Amino acid sequence: MRFVLVHGSWHDGGCWDHVRRHLEAAGHEVHTPTLPGNGAGAARDVTMRQVVDAVVGLLESSGLDDVVLVGHSFGGSVVQQVALRVPERLRRMVFHNAYVVRDGGTVFDDVPASVAPAFQALAEAAGDGTVSLPFDFFREAFCNDADLATAQAAHARMTPEPLARSTEPLALTGFVGLPVPRSYLYATDDNVFPATEFSWHPQMSSRLGPFRLVQMHGSHEVLFTDPAGLAGKLVEAGRD
Amino acid sequence: MRFVLVHGSWHDGGCWDHVRRHLEAAGHEVHTPTLPGNGAGAARDVTMRQVVDAVVGLLESSGLDDVVLVGHSFGGSVVQQVALRVPERLRRMVFHNAYVVRDGGTVFDDVPASVAPAFQALAEAAGDGTVSLPFDFFREAFCNDADLATAQAAHARMTPEPLARSTEPLALTGFVGLPVPRSYLYATDDNVFPATEFSWHPQMSSRLGPFRLVQMHGSHEVLFTDPAGLAGKLVEAGRD
Amino acid sequence: MRFVLVHGSWHDGGCWDHVRRHLEAAGHEVHTPTLPGNGAGAARDVTMRQVVDAVVGLLESSGLDDVVLVGHSFGGSVVQQVALRVPERLRRMVFHNAYVVRDGGTVFDDVPASVAPAFQALAEAAGDGTVSLPFDFFREAFCNDADLATAQAAHARMTPEPLARSTEPLALTGFVGLPVPRSYLYATDDNVFPATEFSWHPQMSSRLGPFRLVQMHGSHEVLFTDPAGLAGKLVEAGRD
Repeated sequence: MRFVLVHGSWHDGGCWDHVRRHLEAAGHEVHTPTLPGNGAGAARDVTMRQVVDAVVGLLESSGLDDVVLVGHSFGGSVVQQVALRVPERLRRMVFHNAYVVRDGGTVFDDVPASVAPAFQALAEAAGDGTVSLPFDFFREAFCNDADLATAQAAHARMTPEPLARSTEPLALTGFVGLPVPRSYLYATDDNVFPATEFSWHPQMSSRLGPFRLVQMHGSHEVLFTDPAGLAGKLVEAGRD
Repeated sequence: MRFVLVHGSWHDGGCWDHVRRHLEAAGHEVHTPTLPGNGAGAARDVTMRQVVDAVVGLLESSGLDDVVLVGHSFGGSVVQQVALRVPERLRRMVFHNAYVVRDGGTVFDDVPASVAPAFQALAEAAGDGTVSLPFDFFREAFCNDADLATAQAAHARMTPEPLARSTEPLALTGFVGLPVPRSYLYATDDNVFPATEFSWHPQMSSRLGPFRLVQMHGSHEVLFTDPAGLAGKLVEAGRD
Repeated sequence: MRFVLVHGSWHDGGCWDHVRRHLEAAGHEVHTPTLPGNGAGAARDVTMRQVVDAVVGLLESSGLDDVVLVGHSFGGSVVQQVALRVPERLRRMVFHNAYVVRDGGTVFDDVPASVAPAFQALAEAAGDGTVSLPFDFFREAFCNDADLATAQAAHARMTPEPLARSTEPLALTGFVGLPVPRSYLYATDDNVFPATEFSWHPQMSSRLGPFRLVQMHGSHEVLFTDPAGLAGKLVEAGRD
């Protein structure tokens, strides 16, 4: 299969390195772009349009077809928009503990009410339109299945997340009806948001229309904590 | 143990072949009747009474006692009715991703509102009182943990399902109070109906009264995708 | 790590024996006190104050610091109260399928409405302020993943549970804000209470404030049915 893996907030393309190695060892082709606004040293003042253009540009300039387009977390919203732009290049979309945004909605629409003020406070503390995750929160809510060293190494990779694009209303008319099959890959130990207020599955997944469900154990950061397991599940989610 | 395995809609007794082999290899006795109305070449104009008579008839004519009676999916409604007829022959009932119908209700009462119109359209397209599952739907919603070849082979086994019996109100007075222990065996990756509207467990299982919960990974069609695992869990569900 | 394991209702400290052996073999220090009111031959007329005093007394008299304090089931309410008394001695709290009581509430506040009358009837039958679990209920609801011999051996260890302490309103002001990290370890096959009315996670866990989620397969009595697995997950829950 030909995978294009779209990372989430705070991450960059290199965060897929271990997953990529397992997929390549199994004979798959893997692309792991870093989105505009993410990664060390990047300019943080980016728009959703720039982000989507970058992924569409990669597919077009490299002539990639039959792509299994995977979005993790924030990356789900990018997959939705890319799919509306170049559906003919996609074999399947895979949403991995990922946002599925409603037509006209924003990524932040689904941040639970109990969490939004903390995000707001972190943003105001940074003062430059980005937010960085405190280690304790990242360790307990994102990396709950990691040992301390893995959590620390993962946290050290994170870079400040630009917030503005997650507040842009997205034009997603026609997404559900696109003739591109879709899977939701849900790591069931995800602890990012309170389960009484939010769920990746079935809340986000229910917005996909008909989809294939694939589940695995692991946290939101299973790309760090179980890359071999995730690679196997990406194949289950991505195959015909 | 002595198992009688009752298949669901579209299936027939032969769909249990792999599960049966694993159970027999472990020393168990296994019966896998094909219900009236199902299987290749069967007459499709059947009533629930005929279906239940067939299973009761098997137990009586073969003199089967101490039976662990297992129902998969639609087969749950059959188990309920057989149990009311011959409780003294049953050691335990096992409901595997199976309907548990309310007294006076029908199997179709629990089909979610978002799915019912599609079923109706498929029925009208067939025009003979049956419905057949399109491959894409079967592959994504029923066989989501299968590879393509397994999903295709499973789909090739399915035969048109007669609808009328699933619309018959069932007289189930006294079912909850029957002195027959019961288990619910839930394959947790089941994707047949939207999880926001329906659940095998806890929605269906909650109608059993006190029951034993047994869970495993896998889709609605785990009898095809993990027959060894299912056989093991049937033993956990069926033992004293 | 230094574990102090607080058992639940009907149990005593010896119920942790297998778990303790696995933890000690992995190099950990383990304390498994029997609470006042529990265990063979104990006086059953105890107050919550006596129970909490006993655990605080163990920590103080043995000079235990850096403690990972684990509560199972009823033991969760004990962990909450001990943490308010000696937070400086705790490295982390772990709640394992455990009650998390609201400030001013009681343990019994969270017993589902459909179960409370049965508990009341059992209490009245005993007539001495205790309740004992009938084997069938224990086997199906508590030990659903056990074979019969394991369930029988576990049931034989249970002793009558004093009820009064579970009806005492608990002063828990300040619990959520304590500077002690906390984990919720959830065995996902727990069948003690109907899942339509109650959940250990996310219902109880949501009262912890920010916490680490750790999940495993198994029933409420996984300390008997998978002590090696539980020991491993206690380490995942308890580590920094």
